Amino acid sequence: MQRKPVGIVGASGYSGIEATRILAEHPGVELRFVTSDRWQGATVQDRLGINHSAGRLAYQGLDRSEELARDCAAVLLATPAESSLELAPRLAKKGVKTIDLSGAFRLKNAAEYPSFYNFVHPAPEALAGAAYGLPELFRSEIGRASLIANPGCYPTGASLAVAPLLRQKLVEDSSIIIDACSGTTGAGRKGNEELSFTEVDEDFRAYRVLRHQHLPEISEALTRCAGRRVPVTFTAHLLPIKRGILSTVYAKLSSGARSEDLTQAFKEFYRSEPFVTVLGSPDEVNLRSVVGTNRCTIGIASDRTGYDPGRVVVVSAIDNLVKGAAGQAVQNLNIALGFPEEQALACLRGFYP
Amino acid sequence: MQRKPVGIVGASGYSGIEATRILAEHPGVELRFVTSDRWQGATVQDRLGINHSAGRLAYQGLDRSEELARDCAAVLLATPAESSLELAPRLAKKGVKTIDLSGAFRLKNAAEYPSFYNFVHPAPEALAGAAYGLPELFRSEIGRASLIANPGCYPTGASLAVAPLLRQKLVEDSSIIIDACSGTTGAGRKGNEELSFTEVDEDFRAYRVLRHQHLPEISEALTRCAGRRVPVTFTAHLLPIKRGILSTVYAKLSSGARSEDLTQAFKEFYRSEPFVTVLGSPDEVNLRSVVGTNRCTIGIASDRTGYDPGRVVVVSAIDNLVKGAAGQAVQNLNIALGFPEEQALACLRGFYP
Amino acid sequence: MQRKPVGIVGASGYSGIEATRILAEHPGVELRFVTSDRWQGATVQDRLGINHSAGRLAYQGLDRSEELARDCAAVLLATPAESSLELAPRLAKKGVKTIDLSGAFRLKNAAEYPSFYNFVHPAPEALAGAAYGLPELFRSEIGRASLIANPGCYPTGASLAVAPLLRQKLVEDSSIIIDACSGTTGAGRKGNEELSFTEVDEDFRAYRVLRHQHLPEISEALTRCAGRRVPVTFTAHLLPIKRGILSTVYAKLSSGARSEDLTQAFKEFYRSEPFVTVLGSPDEVNLRSVVGTNRCTIGIASDRTGYDPGRVVVVSAIDNLVKGAAGQAVQNLNIALGFPEEQALACLRGFYP
Amino acid sequence: MQRKPVGIVGASGYSGIEATRILAEHPGVELRFVTSDRWQGATVQDRLGINHSAGRLAYQGLDRSEELARDCAAVLLATPAESSLELAPRLAKKGVKTIDLSGAFRLKNAAEYPSFYNFVHPAPEALAGAAYGLPELFRSEIGRASLIANPGCYPTGASLAVAPLLRQKLVEDSSIIIDACSGTTGAGRKGNEELSFTEVDEDFRAYRVLRHQHLPEISEALTRCAGRRVPVTFTAHLLPIKRGILSTVYAKLSSGARSEDLTQAFKEFYRSEPFVTVLGSPDEVNLRSVVGTNRCTIGIASDRTGYDPGRVVVVSAIDNLVKGAAGQAVQNLNIALGFPEEQALACLRGFYP
Repeated sequence: MQRKPVGIVGASGYSGIEATRILAEHPGVELRFVTSDRWQGATVQDRLGINHSAGRLAYQGLDRSEELARDCAAVLLATPAESSLELAPRLAKKGVKTIDLSGAFRLKNAAEYPSFYNFVHPAPEALAGAAYGLPELFRSEIGRASLIANPGCYPTGASLAVAPLLRQKLVEDSSIIIDACSGTTGAGRKGNEELSFTEVDEDFRAYRVLRHQHLPEISEALTRCAGRRVPVTFTAHLLPIKRGILSTVYAKLSSGARSEDLTQAFKEFYRSEPFVTVLGSPDEVNLRSVVGTNRCTIGIASDRTGYDPGRVVVVSAIDNLVKGAAGQAVQNLNIALGFPEEQALACLRGFYP
Repeated sequence: MQRKPVGIVGASGYSGIEATRILAEHPGVELRFVTSDRWQGATVQDRLGINHSAGRLAYQGLDRSEELARDCAAVLLATPAESSLELAPRLAKKGVKTIDLSGAFRLKNAAEYPSFYNFVHPAPEALAGAAYGLPELFRSEIGRASLIANPGCYPTGASLAVAPLLRQKLVEDSSIIIDACSGTTGAGRKGNEELSFTEVDEDFRAYRVLRHQHLPEISEALTRCAGRRVPVTFTAHLLPIKRGILSTVYAKLSSGARSEDLTQAFKEFYRSEPFVTVLGSPDEVNLRSVVGTNRCTIGIASDRTGYDPGRVVVVSAIDNLVKGAAGQAVQNLNIALGFPEEQALACLRGFYP
Repeated sequence: MQRKPVGIVGASGYSGIEATRILAEHPGVELRFVTSDRWQGATVQDRLGINHSAGRLAYQGLDRSEELARDCAAVLLATPAESSLELAPRLAKKGVKTIDLSGAFRLKNAAEYPSFYNFVHPAPEALAGAAYGLPELFRSEIGRASLIANPGCYPTGASLAVAPLLRQKLVEDSSIIIDACSGTTGAGRKGNEELSFTEVDEDFRAYRVLRHQHLPEISEALTRCAGRRVPVTFTAHLLPIKRGILSTVYAKLSSGARSEDLTQAFKEFYRSEPFVTVLGSPDEVNLRSVVGTNRCTIGIASDRTGYDPGRVVVVSAIDNLVKGAAGQAVQNLNIALGFPEEQALACLRGFYP
Repeated sequence: MQRKPVGIVGASGYSGIEATRILAEHPGVELRFVTSDRWQGATVQDRLGINHSAGRLAYQGLDRSEELARDCAAVLLATPAESSLELAPRLAKKGVKTIDLSGAFRLKNAAEYPSFYNFVHPAPEALAGAAYGLPELFRSEIGRASLIANPGCYPTGASLAVAPLLRQKLVEDSSIIIDACSGTTGAGRKGNEELSFTEVDEDFRAYRVLRHQHLPEISEALTRCAGRRVPVTFTAHLLPIKRGILSTVYAKLSSGARSEDLTQAFKEFYRSEPFVTVLGSPDEVNLRSVVGTNRCTIGIASDRTGYDPGRVVVVSAIDNLVKGAAGQAVQNLNIALGFPEEQALACLRGFYP
């Protein structure tokens, strides 16, 4: 079978690097171009040590992205929202399956952009047509769309942990709290004093409490998932690690639901999902076993001590750069181009130990 | 003024080391003995590099602890619960102010020991008489008691964050959730594969979810603080750092309470407390500025986005070995022996950067 | 082509885990068995998240290793030296290509075992027949041998950095110093207080200075490489990271050698080697770009300031678990079984970022 | 006794923060001013949590430094070399004991500045008069000087490890190699992508190999110490830790010197030095026991295996921000102002665990 041509715009950021590595091993695609101003002129082998064919590809300037993308079947935009806003609709209109890793097309409600992203959305009409690329919850719309908004890292970990509770009304909607902690790659590749080793190592803190830009995205995802408006509290914390998001979700059991059925309900919900594994307890969930893979692990517990009857705790773990970014983007690309969904992803080996 | 004789039992564990350093600089006491089987025969200078008088003290075997403690005005037990159970009541009966850093005397309800500590409490009658040594909340009883149960690290961080909300009924009792993350010194000094560098670094996980041994302690502290039974959910996580506990508390505003009054209410509650600092926002709270000190910093936020009206988030930070263990023990010792409460503690410089 | 049956003895240690992952993706072999007492009964999928055929394999008890190995074309022993001493010669005699990752057969001089490994070697006659499995330096003997002693992690990084200097007499033999720093996985998977997160994080130290067990191995490798006895100083340090060894080698230029030729000499020496990359400067060598791969990167500098004329510095980097253990073992297996040497190794993606 | 007025210029960098904390507890001085553009207007209590008198001091703009310094007995300049070049000679001329923490006045040979510091020295005549503030080696000149150049962090750790060898000709001059590894605070407080957590954590590398700016400083220090020109090789590495420098020094025993006398020779050399501790072996030297203190620990070993007869290894450890910067600056201030040398330094407690 002929390989389908694909490209990556913004290939030197952390998500772009990860996407390059995954697509370089994808048997169904030919990586046709990678653009990056930082690495312009160097080859993929120079920068990432990839030896086979994709390694010979040279990084081209970002200004050539549109021209190079036009001949591709699909393209990943690992660019800041500002760049994606311009490029994504133009490529999608030309029939290129466009998977955007920024927040530019994730929200349906354009009115949230000014307060959470600091810009007035220039193409609000494109928001309705963009699919929200979380396959486990919204698979059907992904296949049909030209423009796929790849979810944020926090929204991915949070939605996968909460969705089964909502769909089956296992918990009270008003009780959902998402407490999440992320490694530093989530902040991207930059020279920011606050993200320097000296400031981050041996420290831990919450940030943008009750005003994080992923809040409206999580709210929209959960609300669409539930089929009703769901209130949501979400707090982000910065971990002194490089990769991974652990989300600890709190909720109250609905009257009628039984705590002993929860794990089984999750297992059924994700029965056919290759990338979601439901474990026997939240204590078994950790970052070390998912980092470097496209997996999400989930564990569920409920109060048995009587100190807070009806309390439910769900813990989920993902790698923010893989299931939370580049891996999920390739999963979406696989859906968009008709490849098996696990292609080039099932083989990711992880970083443990 | 003559220095009062004090001693430390179990001085080579992490809390014992910290206590030794603090008491070595305390102008009101004479560190009379330190016991440790591990370091028996070596001097404090050998092990901790302390040059002045306390440095000349040699570690003695644990079996000499009782005999040496009898002549002291106060003694710190930095021992496992099993050892404290025996020693603490005997010393307290002899009039030695006994500050126990283990969980052996923290709970009033002896019935909780079998399930949370794996032993039947051998001296349940001693529990009623033991003061719970969290000065900011229960100062008056500490001065009167012979046996002071020094609080657990998680309960200290959690109680300081929640108490002002409960005392003034600012939030609904049933809504309180405590999500806490601790460094590895909280697990003590041991060679446990699960705590090895290879297993912990670059990882993060929750543990003993909804069954942690600090759950009944937090419940009792909050219930006494509120004057009514308060349900509580508490989750512990292991951070890849050495010291520090960050607690993120979630609650729902009571009808009648106003979110804009919360920070002020905390400031008033802790107005005279030298070791608690209320900051302008949870984003200002971090571990790096409290580690190495006896301080607790607290920040409060409430929902302004409308995504979860009435939601309140309180974040607190302490050093688990200082305010969460040895520092608080010295604070209790200061109260018990009539010293100014900040003695030997205000000068702790912290570890930043 | 039919896949050749292979097995791994001691598959739950860090090297064994890494070997399992690599062989699970090897297109020329069928992973027939994995033994481990720790994980007996569980499957490879349970423990390592591998989904395809190798994932269905169940770990068997170590006592079944010999019986299972007899039907294999090759077997990796990721066991302590004590176990390898017994098992390796027996398997080799039966014609199973036996690649031993311990130190049990690395030294030719049996007299060194008592002082450096604390045992009298029980099979000194087997030492002469064992190949030293460092393909870049001793490839020809590896193909012929039944028993292959996989080199130690430090000796691998050190020998690759020093060999080109010795072969071409570019430096004075008596001037060679190897200063090396390793991550904690080099110490294996154990619950040792000295290797706990609290003791290792934010610390750094040398250990077993001038008496490390890899000293005779490095000496033998360099002496064989040079064809003359070479004195060697080697110091090991423990880094607060999980993986990787950086070796900084010091030497004095020979009279007659020219510093400006050094990098070119290294490039020629390793011209046909797929896993060794010679970079333009020691400043370009780092762990992050080799960890997770079977690569060794090397950079060379010489004094241009006049502060120490003739001084040469060579820096090399490897992943101690891959090129320093499991990856090199698979490289040896490829040679022993006649596969292309890069098979299952060229595709390793690395852990950056 | 009346406290002597002192000040700190550049008080918000990592060395400035450390100096502020130490001087705030110094019983002989009154901290009269701290300048920093970054923190202008805030108080020392706001930024460092210091509660007593020094805490009330407000940071002033850097442009007021000279005016404020004129009334002080001594001033610390924790500023970049560019700022010190201007300010230091002017203050010294006015009789203010000026301790400069930058490299601006450390070299006697002005000709080295262009290649190692990228500037032509504007005041070469001031270099001869500046004392090199390493008290253990050059104490007498420090007391007499108005301008004291506080040594670099690497030169401090290296010189203390090498000096006893040189003074007594215990090793061959031409054999000295210094391999040193530093935490990230040595690079100062900046937002540099190369120093971000993501790039530094789990990595390790050498940098500026054979061209580091501390090379001429080490050479001058050792040459003056020996009384003869000493060649020197020095390599710096970046550790993924915040604080500390471990230096591993290699040399060859002189004919006539005996390896078994080395430790004793070091003990005698540093007999009266309160901040240098000679331990029984390099294996006992580590960063965790010196970080947060003004101590330097040193251990010495020599070859007993016969693999490199006559080889000597000396390992030293310091905290780069204390003995390598702010602590040594206060030690120099104590000498300059006639205080006991240990004042405000002996009490530093360290950061372990």
